[in-house]
Amino acid sequence: MERDPSDLVERALGADRAAIAKLISLVEQGGNSADAAVARLFPRTGRAYTVGITGAPGSGKSTLTDKLIGLIRATGDEVGVLAIDPTSPFSGGAILGDRVRMQDHATDEGVYIRSMATRGHLGGLSLATPQAIRILDAAGKPFVLVETVGVGQVEVEVAGAADTTIVVVNPGWGDAVQANKAGLLEIADLFVVNKADRDGTAETVRDLDAMLDLSGALEWRPRIVQAVATTGRGVDDVWDGVAEHRAFLEENDRLKVRRDARLRDELHSIVRARLEQRVAGHATGERFEKLVGQVSRRELDPYAAADELLGG
Amino acid sequence: MERDPSDLVERALGADRAAIAKLISLVEQGGNSADAAVARLFPRTGRAYTVGITGAPGSGKSTLTDKLIGLIRATGDEVGVLAIDPTSPFSGGAILGDRVRMQDHATDEGVYIRSMATRGHLGGLSLATPQAIRILDAAGKPFVLVETVGVGQVEVEVAGAADTTIVVVNPGWGDAVQANKAGLLEIADLFVVNKADRDGTAETVRDLDAMLDLSGALEWRPRIVQAVATTGRGVDDVWDGVAEHRAFLEENDRLKVRRDARLRDELHSIVRARLEQRVAGHATGERFEKLVGQVSRRELDPYAAADELLGG
Repeated sequence: MERDPSDLVERALGADRAAIAKLISLVEQGGNSADAAVARLFPRTGRAYTVGITGAPGSGKSTLTDKLIGLIRATGDEVGVLAIDPTSPFSGGAILGDRVRMQDHATDEGVYIRSMATRGHLGGLSLATPQAIRILDAAGKPFVLVETVGVGQVEVEVAGAADTTIVVVNPGWGDAVQANKAGLLEIADLFVVNKADRDGTAETVRDLDAMLDLSGALEWRPRIVQAVATTGRGVDDVWDGVAEHRAFLEENDRLKVRRDARLRDELHSIVRARLEQRVAGHATGERFEKLVGQVSRRELDPYAAADELLGG
Repeated sequence: MERDPSDLVERALGADRAAIAKLISLVEQGGNSADAAVARLFPRTGRAYTVGITGAPGSGKSTLTDKLIGLIRATGDEVGVLAIDPTSPFSGGAILGDRVRMQDHATDEGVYIRSMATRGHLGGLSLATPQAIRILDAAGKPFVLVETVGVGQVEVEVAGAADTTIVVVNPGWGDAVQANKAGLLEIADLFVVNKADRDGTAETVRDLDAMLDLSGALEWRPRIVQAVATTGRGVDDVWDGVAEHRAFLEENDRLKVRRDARLRDELHSIVRARLEQRVAGHATGERFEKLVGQVSRRELDPYAAADELLGG
C-alpha cells in the first residue's frame, strides 16, 4: 500500500465515496503513505464540526446516532459518521452489532458511514481517528459524528477529542456512577439520559446533577437531556443542546482554543509514534539479544541495558 | 523523593517491611530514584515464582487469593501479594473494596500484601508491577501473587506477565465467552471456575473446553479447576494446578524462555519510557507553540511539524 496517494486525495476532495473509503483504510493501517495523504488534504480541513457520542455498551448510542443522522439530513446538510470498534484482543475483529441499523442511510449519498477498528497497538485508534475525521472534513461534510463505546481509556479519549461530546447514560441505579468511574463525566459537554421512558430516569438526572455540583464551578455546565432514541423522542433537544454548546464555543474563540489543545495532543502523539518506530529499530537484532542475555544472567540491570540501547 | 535509595534497598533485602513499602511507593511513582533502586536490587532477583490471578470484577479473585495465601503459609513458605487497582480516571484513587478481607493476614510476618495503583499514564502499571515483584523477590519471598481485574488491555497484560497465570470465571451463560473477548483465554495457564456450587458449572467447563479446542494444538493445555473459594473447596486443586504448570515450565528450560520473553517486552517498555521523556522535552516551549500555531493556521501539516520537532 506504499503507493502515492495523491490521486486518491484528489478524488476524496471531490467526495468520491470509494476514494474516501480507501483513504480511511489507509489511515487505519497507518504508515508513510497514510501520513502523506493526510498532509496533502490537511489545508482543506478545519471546517467540519465534530460530535463525539459515547456511553456504555447497550446504552443506545447507535440508535441515537441513527436518529441524529436523520435530523441532520432533514436540514439538507451532509454528514459523515465514524463508528469506532475497539478491536477484540482475541479475534482481532470489529464488532458491528447493532450498527447495522445505521445502514438504513446507506443509500443516501449525503451520508457516509464507516466502522473503524485498529489492529495492533493501543495508540493506533487515537491517531487514526482524527485523520479519518479530516478525510470526511476535506470531502466537504459539515458534520462528523464519532461514536465510540465508552469503555477503556483510549475510547474515552477518542470520544472526548470532538468539538462537542455527548455522553449517553440510561436510567437505573448506578449508571451515572459507572459513567463517572469510566471518566465520562470529565469529557461530557452534554448528557443524554436515553431510554427515559423507564423507571429511574428522574433519579439518574438527579445523580448526574449532583455529580456536576461536586465538580465545582464549571465554565460550561453540561446540559442533561432526556430522550427515547428508539421512538425519536427528545432527539431534537439533543441536537439543540449540541447547537447551544457550539454557540458557546464559538463565542470568544473558545472553539479555536479547544481545537489547538487537541492539536497539541496530536503532535505529542505523532512525535511519540515516530519515536516508537525508532524503538523498534533499537530493540531488535543481535545487539539487543546480547543485552537480553546479559540482563537474564543478572550481569546488567534492565535500565542500564536500555541506556546502552539508546546510547548506541 | 529523588534521594539515594541505597539504604532503603539494603533494608528491603533484609525483609524490612517499612523499607519494602517505601520502595514499592517509589516504583509506583517512577522516576530516576525508582530506576536506581531496582538496578541496585536486581542482582538479587530471579528466585521468586510469580502467579497472576485475574478475572472479571466479582468473580472471587480476592477470596481465592486469600485462600492461596493461607495454603502457601501452611507449608511454611512466605508470600508477597500485589493487588493491582486500576486507577479511576476520575478520582485518581485506588478501589480497595473486598481486598480488605486479605488483611486478615496482615499480622502474619510471612505475608506482605500491598495494593498498587498508578496515577497517570497507561504504561505506568506495566512498568511498575515487574519492579514491585522484584522488590518482593529480592526481599526473599519465594512466591509472589499478582491479582488484577481482568478488564482493560493493561490489566490483562500485567496478569499475563507471570510465570503461571490463573484466570477466574464463574458459572453462568456467557462468562467464558466474556473471558474470551477480554483476551483472558490467551493468557490463561489455568482456569478456575469459581462459585462451582452454582448452576451452570458444567456448562461453563464445557464452554472453556470447547474454546480451548478451537485454539488448536497447544503445547500446554490449561487445566480447568472447579472451586468454591469462600469455603475453600478446590483451592488445593488450584495450587496443585499451579505446581503442575510450574513443573512443565521447569522442564526443557521453558521457564527461562518465558522469563526472557518478558524481559524483552520490559526492555522495549523502558526504552519507550525513556523516549517519552524526550518527547516531553521536545514538545513544549516556545518552538513547540510556534509550530502549533502554524498547524492551526494550516500553514504546516501535523507530520511536517512533528518532523521539525524531532529534527531540531
